[in-house]
Parts: sequence; structure tokens; C-alpha cells
Amino acid sequence: MPLTEFELISRYFDRPVRRDDVALGIGDDAALLRPPPGRELALSTDTLIAGVHFRDDFPPRDIGHRALAVNLSDLAAMGAEPAWAILALTLPAADEQWLDGFSTGFFELADAHHVALVGGNTARGPLNITLAVAGFVPVGMALRRDGARAGDAIYVSGTLGDAGYALENWRTADAATRQRLLRPLPRLALGMALRGVASGAIDISDGFAADLGHILERSRAGARVAVERLPLSPVLHKLDRSVAWRLALSSGDDYELCFTVPPAREGDLSAISARCGCALTRVGEITAGGGLQLLAADGAAITLERAGHRHF
Amino acid sequence: MPLTEFELISRYFDRPVRRDDVALGIGDDAALLRPPPGRELALSTDTLIAGVHFRDDFPPRDIGHRALAVNLSDLAAMGAEPAWAILALTLPAADEQWLDGFSTGFFELADAHHVALVGGNTARGPLNITLAVAGFVPVGMALRRDGARAGDAIYVSGTLGDAGYALENWRTADAATRQRLLRPLPRLALGMALRGVASGAIDISDGFAADLGHILERSRAGARVAVERLPLSPVLHKLDRSVAWRLALSSGDDYELCFTVPPAREGDLSAISARCGCALTRVGEITAGGGLQLLAADGAAITLERAGHRHF
Repeated sequence: MPLTEFELISRYFDRPVRRDDVALGIGDDAALLRPPPGRELALSTDTLIAGVHFRDDFPPRDIGHRALAVNLSDLAAMGAEPAWAILALTLPAADEQWLDGFSTGFFELADAHHVALVGGNTARGPLNITLAVAGFVPVGMALRRDGARAGDAIYVSGTLGDAGYALENWRTADAATRQRLLRPLPRLALGMALRGVASGAIDISDGFAADLGHILERSRAGARVAVERLPLSPVLHKLDRSVAWRLALSSGDDYELCFTVPPAREGDLSAISARCGCALTRVGEITAGGGLQLLAADGAAITLERAGHRHF
Repeated sequence: MPLTEFELISRYFDRPVRRDDVALGIGDDAALLRPPPGRELALSTDTLIAGVHFRDDFPPRDIGHRALAVNLSDLAAMGAEPAWAILALTLPAADEQWLDGFSTGFFELADAHHVALVGGNTARGPLNITLAVAGFVPVGMALRRDGARAGDAIYVSGTLGDAGYALENWRTADAATRQRLLRPLPRLALGMALRGVASGAIDISDGFAADLGHILERSRAGARVAVERLPLSPVLHKLDRSVAWRLALSSGDDYELCFTVPPAREGDLSAISARCGCALTRVGEITAGGGLQLLAADGAAITLERAGHRHF
């Protein structure tokens, strides 16, 4: 006997809400929420599709984690504190084993960041996982793409290219590198810590070069990046340099933050790095123009084969 | 040359925002919004899938209207004033003619209700249109499903079953009846007017009997409905009574409101009906228990073949 929509929601998604800013959660036509005064609401949406955003053989628990993680990463990139999520889940069938794994992975990450699932929708069709997430940021303190200025330093968190390496070498990649693809960790603590410090920020979902390009476009600026400074994990360090650089520059799915910092605030970063438990690496600086210049150690320009993930 | 994601968004969806509660719209990792003080935020999501929620031959302009309409209908059912929408659009290809029609229909309805599209996401895959919408309602004044009490009258707006009739008789249905399916009108003015008057409300998307059933379940109540009182359009009046009743009771997609009103407030409804320009019909009353009783004119019980749309 197949599940009805209501049984499905009740069994896998309608969990007790532990936030007192949720006046009404799952079960009505809309959730009723109480945004805190003096804050802006950051609202974002992201979609995962089988075969495009994850491999068909990914464990459902990782897919549940990943669906929420890539959405929370957008809030991290704004410096927002996450609060609420709504889930629109389109499924070919109500596979209870899949739903059990998916919801487990989803709520593990939600609970870790005090995110309440307050509503959603289920429909039958080709697998499509779309979330909308909302969070708060003090008025005027959000990290935007349009605030980078010439002379600002460019930083990235963590290491780059691991998720792309795992995708290209799925059978041979070690477990830790696979985890970078399966279970990206949204840099929420870092995003919040960068309020008032970073002049611009974006999360790296399409690839470092493409995502930095969005900052440059919105800030009407250029950048010089020293490619040998891009932070690489030990696995990528062992690769041929051109392969490692391609992955670090162009592969998506790392969900690290790329951000810009005015020289006067760079001194704050070592304490932030220690507090957030993640490496922050200076990879270049913003220029008044000239597009994105990628430079090797000898100063030679590097050309990218493709500038990150194109959706169409 | 196919469109990039950014060209697609810029060409079809990034329009000037005319709301001053939008601090930052499309183009960053998240929108930045300023909810008004003293209001609750109503947040909802709904998905449209080709072949499930609309026919493949529907004009894209109608699909654009419909995608927003079914979402705004959820806000209407809460008594909320709509404000913001985010759109997650999964498309098999960037068909410019389709996008032009879709976005035209979407923005026609958005503009009519001062709704700003503040963000979204595009991905490549089987067509899936998921929206999240947000609106405001004064604290504690939302129309919920759980407030109906024994003795309250049950009302519906407009007429029932027309959209279902159009779907079943697509080739022969007249233009006005087809419009009920193609271009449902969310009852936003009515929902807002019912604040403080209705004790419970829901929009009719799955069928009157199923949706009233949700009010009964959440309110832990029963209902007696006089089936001959269900409001029918002239087209349905001409049908065999059993066919018309089946459509009015069980077919979805009408997006009328079903709501309950305490006897002391029923006197308010004629002014509300006049102000909102829609008929409001008393079809029964809430009972302390006994489930949903559907009664013919002679008092005989009517049994439904199926209790509305099941998603799985």
C-alpha cells in the first residue's frame, strides 16, 4: 500500500520544532514565522537533481545532508545565521528506505545548525529536491558580492578541488576526499565571523574562478590570483600541477567561501581562522580592472579551459 | 548558442523591484529582505510538474501564471498579504519562446499583487517549477486549519468543479471554463478580509471534500455538508447531478477558499462578498465529530468514490 502525501510527511518530516520563532510549522497552508526585529531576512533556494548534482549511487543519507548543505552554504556566504527551511520534494515513488535515509541525513545537519523544517510540498515525478532556506543578519551587515574594492585581499577557506577530484575519481578516491563531495560542510560560523570584516563574499559551488568572477562582475573590479597559492589538500598536492590547478580553479561543489578583505582588516583573520577551525588562505588581490588574471609563480598567465559549471 | 544560467536570469527574470522591503534582490547568494514589525511571516512552497499539474500543451504564459497562482493561493488561505517569491526552475533546455511566455504570465500576476521575485535558481533537468512565497499577517490573525469549532458554518467562495470539468473535457469545454484551469485566481483579497471573521480556512487544491477533511482533522471536528448547496457554474448545472457533484466534491485545482465562520460573524459575510467581488456560499456546518457527512436534499448520505487527489 503506497504512502499518501500526508503519511509520508508525517512519518519522515514532521518533527518537533525547537525554535520559538516558529508559530506554526508543517501541516497548514503556510508556516507562520516570527522574524527577529532589527535583522534582515536572507532568503535563498537551491535545487538538486539526480545525475546532475549527485551521482545516482550516492547514499540517500548523504543526499539529504547535501541538499540542505548546499542551501545553507548560500546563507554562509551572506554571513547569515540560518533559521528555517522548506522542502519541495519531487519523487518518482515513495521509497521508504530512501526517505528514511534522506530525512536522517537532512535532520542531522539541520539539528547541528538549529534549522527548523517548517513546511514543504511533495509531488510525484522525476527526482528533484528543492529547498528554500531563510536566516538572519543584522541590518546592513550582510556579506554581498558587490562590495569588493581595488586593493582588497582575496581569501579562500579550506582547500579547493577535492570535491571535483572525488567526482572524477570516484572509485579510487579515499574516504576523506569522497566526503568532501558527499557531505559538504557549509561555512556558517565563518560567514558570521566575517561580518564587518569581509568586503565581499561568495560560496564556491561552480568553481573558484567562476565564483570569484561573480564578485568581480558585481563589484565592477578585476583580480590578480597567484595560482600556486591556491590551498590544496595532500591528495591534490600529489597530482600533476596542471591537473591540481584545473580542479582547484574550475571544479565546483567545494562549498568553501571566497571572500575579500580590506588591508586594514586582514589582521582579524588569524583569530577568525582559529575560532572557526578552518584555514584561510590569501590567494590574490582585487584590482581596479583587467578581469581575472591567473598567474603562475613565474608571473606567466594561466588560461582556463572552462570557467566553471554552466547550467545551460 | 545556448543561454548561460546568468543570461537566462538576466533576460527573463531580473526585473526592477518596486518594493522598499527588498534590500537586495536577484544576483547574490541570497535575497535580503526587511519584514515589517508586528507581523508574522507566512512562508509556503508548491511545485508544478509537466503532465501532473498541467497538460503538456498548456501555453507557457498560462503555466507562468498558474505556478505563481497556486502558491499565492496558499497565502490567501492563511489570510496573508503576499510580498516576495523565489523561483527554482528546472528546465530540459533553455527554450527562449517558452521562457518568454512563462515569465510574461508570471510577472503579470506578480505585478497585479505587488509580489517581487527576489531570487531563484535554474537547473537543467526534467521540467519542474517550484516556488516559495512569503507574505505577512498581523500576529495571531492568520487563518489556520485548526480553528473550526462545532456549530461554525462552512462556506466556499466562487463555484466548484470547473477546473476538473475543463481537465476532463479539454477539447469541448468553453473558454471561460478552461480559464478556471489555466488561470486560477488566488483569493487573496478574500483571505485578508476573513481575518478575525473565519475560524478556519484552506484553499481547494485537492478537492472540496479532501481539503475540508484537512480542516476537520486539524480541528478534531466533523462536518455535515448539504451537497445540493455546493455552488456550481452554469456549465456544471447542466450536467447529470452525480457527475456535477463528483466534480464539485472531488476534483482539485479550483483554488477557491473553504472556510468556517462562527454564527456570530456570519453577518459580516455579505459585505465581504460584495467588497471582494465573489460569491460566498454556506454549504454546511461543523459538528463535534462524526467525520464528514455528505447529505443529499432528502437527507440520504452520499459516498465519494475517491477523496481527492492523492500524491503517492
